[in-house]
Amino acid sequence: MTRSLQLDLGNHRYAITIGAGILPTLGSLLVPLLKGKQVAVVTNQTVAPLYLAEVQRSLQEAGFQVLPIILPDGEIYKNHETLQLIYDALIANRFERSCCLVALGGGVIGDMTGFAAASFLRGVSYVQVPTTLLSQVDSSVGGKTGINHPLGKNLIGAFYQPQLVLIDTYTLTTLPSRQFLSGMAEVIKYGIAFDADFFDFLGNNQQEILALQPDTLAVMIEKSCAIKAKVVEEDEKESGRRALLNLGHTFGHAIETLTHYDTFLHGEAVAIGMVMAADLSHRVDLCDYHSVNKITDLINSFRLPIHCPIYSEEAYLDAMSRDKKVAAGKVRFVLLAGIGQALMGRSVAEEAVRATIRDRVSFS
Amino acid sequence: MTRSLQLDLGNHRYAITIGAGILPTLGSLLVPLLKGKQVAVVTNQTVAPLYLAEVQRSLQEAGFQVLPIILPDGEIYKNHETLQLIYDALIANRFERSCCLVALGGGVIGDMTGFAAASFLRGVSYVQVPTTLLSQVDSSVGGKTGINHPLGKNLIGAFYQPQLVLIDTYTLTTLPSRQFLSGMAEVIKYGIAFDADFFDFLGNNQQEILALQPDTLAVMIEKSCAIKAKVVEEDEKESGRRALLNLGHTFGHAIETLTHYDTFLHGEAVAIGMVMAADLSHRVDLCDYHSVNKITDLINSFRLPIHCPIYSEEAYLDAMSRDKKVAAGKVRFVLLAGIGQALMGRSVAEEAVRATIRDRVSFS
Repeated sequence: MTRSLQLDLGNHRYAITIGAGILPTLGSLLVPLLKGKQVAVVTNQTVAPLYLAEVQRSLQEAGFQVLPIILPDGEIYKNHETLQLIYDALIANRFERSCCLVALGGGVIGDMTGFAAASFLRGVSYVQVPTTLLSQVDSSVGGKTGINHPLGKNLIGAFYQPQLVLIDTYTLTTLPSRQFLSGMAEVIKYGIAFDADFFDFLGNNQQEILALQPDTLAVMIEKSCAIKAKVVEEDEKESGRRALLNLGHTFGHAIETLTHYDTFLHGEAVAIGMVMAADLSHRVDLCDYHSVNKITDLINSFRLPIHCPIYSEEAYLDAMSRDKKVAAGKVRFVLLAGIGQALMGRSVAEEAVRATIRDRVSFS
Repeated sequence: MTRSLQLDLGNHRYAITIGAGILPTLGSLLVPLLKGKQVAVVTNQTVAPLYLAEVQRSLQEAGFQVLPIILPDGEIYKNHETLQLIYDALIANRFERSCCLVALGGGVIGDMTGFAAASFLRGVSYVQVPTTLLSQVDSSVGGKTGINHPLGKNLIGAFYQPQLVLIDTYTLTTLPSRQFLSGMAEVIKYGIAFDADFFDFLGNNQQEILALQPDTLAVMIEKSCAIKAKVVEEDEKESGRRALLNLGHTFGHAIETLTHYDTFLHGEAVAIGMVMAADLSHRVDLCDYHSVNKITDLINSFRLPIHCPIYSEEAYLDAMSRDKKVAAGKVRFVLLAGIGQALMGRSVAEEAVRATIRDRVSFS
């Protein structure tokens, strides 16, 4: 069963196509979308041995000339030097404006390939083939592309929409389990922040999801993309709503900073951050306690952490105030009025924040 | 007298404001256009001593915080390393998404600053304050931004429209005369390719233009921008018309290549190229001889070269076939059916091209 979602973002229409084992259809899906014959498949050393041959064959059978560009794997390579490797390969192979770049991999490959497409010859086509759950439900939608700068993440980039996003849920079978669960944190976030029914769906289908049951995964990913697309669309008209996607991120970033980004995956830190945001929402009388418990239980049932590492309250407060999203020194939190009801960033009494930190610090 | 032209390109509206001595109005013009207070003025070591203080004062008096970024002057610095200097300065000074970049200088500064704006934090505002005639009539319109790659010009970049273009014709008084005349070649091109009335205007006002008479310059620049804007707008709907802007460029690029880019300024090479394109148009029975003479005379009256340097026919043909715009080895020329009537690129019999080269090679 293949599912398809039509998006209309930034004046540009494209489809997200989701299914199990649909990688071999990439070539024929691209035929009506592309003007030229030159296609570069940008991937990394981890994904290439798994899926590059299949993608390449599909493209060649559809009549495209394929240039594979295999980059080193990891966030530390999401930089200018690696971007130059993409440009150099395209130029050395005389790629023209009618070419297309295919991003085959996770968020790092997607962000870099998207920015390379946005900036090569003032913009060429690109296609996302995300192979991690996080990139399937998050970076597939919204057109954020970019690279890191030595002084900060994602400082250089562009909003640039793909021609197509093709999500083969089968690629999740080769994704390390911890990476999958980290992606689940973002999926759960969509439920907590925007959609109580989807929150219930995740609870009711927890076993199927963890068993990677293809139809359940496809429904889950489609719904996640649809929720994110709606938020992004609304944000285009009425600025600010996109900020709700940062639920759990203020605490989460503090946790990542304090642990020097080497203890928790991003989704794990966000999972803890969402529990803390729910807890804080209850302390300032926005959210009932029953909802806080349901949120904590669902996150826990997906084997994600719910306690934060042991640092002093001061260390947490300091790490949060250095977060780049802090305007004029005031820490603002995305809070909850209940499950599915995220509220725009607001500042709260420091004592409530301290109480949440005290309560969630793990002594186990 | 200040003139203003409203453009509507790439889904984005902005104004080109033209006048003599209007640099000091920049700050107040920007107040309603910008959300934030941070403004970086990107300029070079040649322009900074002339106009930076005036621009900075105007912005500060309007309440903006101004960061000057002074780059080395020259096309050889239109590269990744210089772009990084812009990013570094913005990041070191904690520039946020609401900031604005002001490009104060010629085409190199405009292209680089525009691309920095397109790619910093996924896109911030920018404003063009072009100080050369070429950048005023050419790069102000169309949103082409970018940098060079070691293997080719403008290979990395984006289409990105400014919030405002402010053209102070007074800045032309400090422009070296040869640069001014080189810019005139592009102005004349608009007349030859698209507008016989404008062609006559240039002939009738030649003395006022060369004397930098402010009102005449403002009319001339406004008309040039309007002609280019119309071509670019039409191109957005019906692709290809923009290619007519390349009148004179096939021969022009060959001349630049053969002389290693160190003998003629770009406009000078285009001037010769336009005479050759007119000559070739006559040889293939598209254009009457009287028009060819009028074109040659007008170009000559603006002290621009009309003969090409001495190289063999083979050298010219070879240089043209290596031009990046050549598709599948066929040299295509923008030709003329008459003054104001450019025709889409077409290939012609090699013997006609050889005859044009023979005829225009200078033995003087």
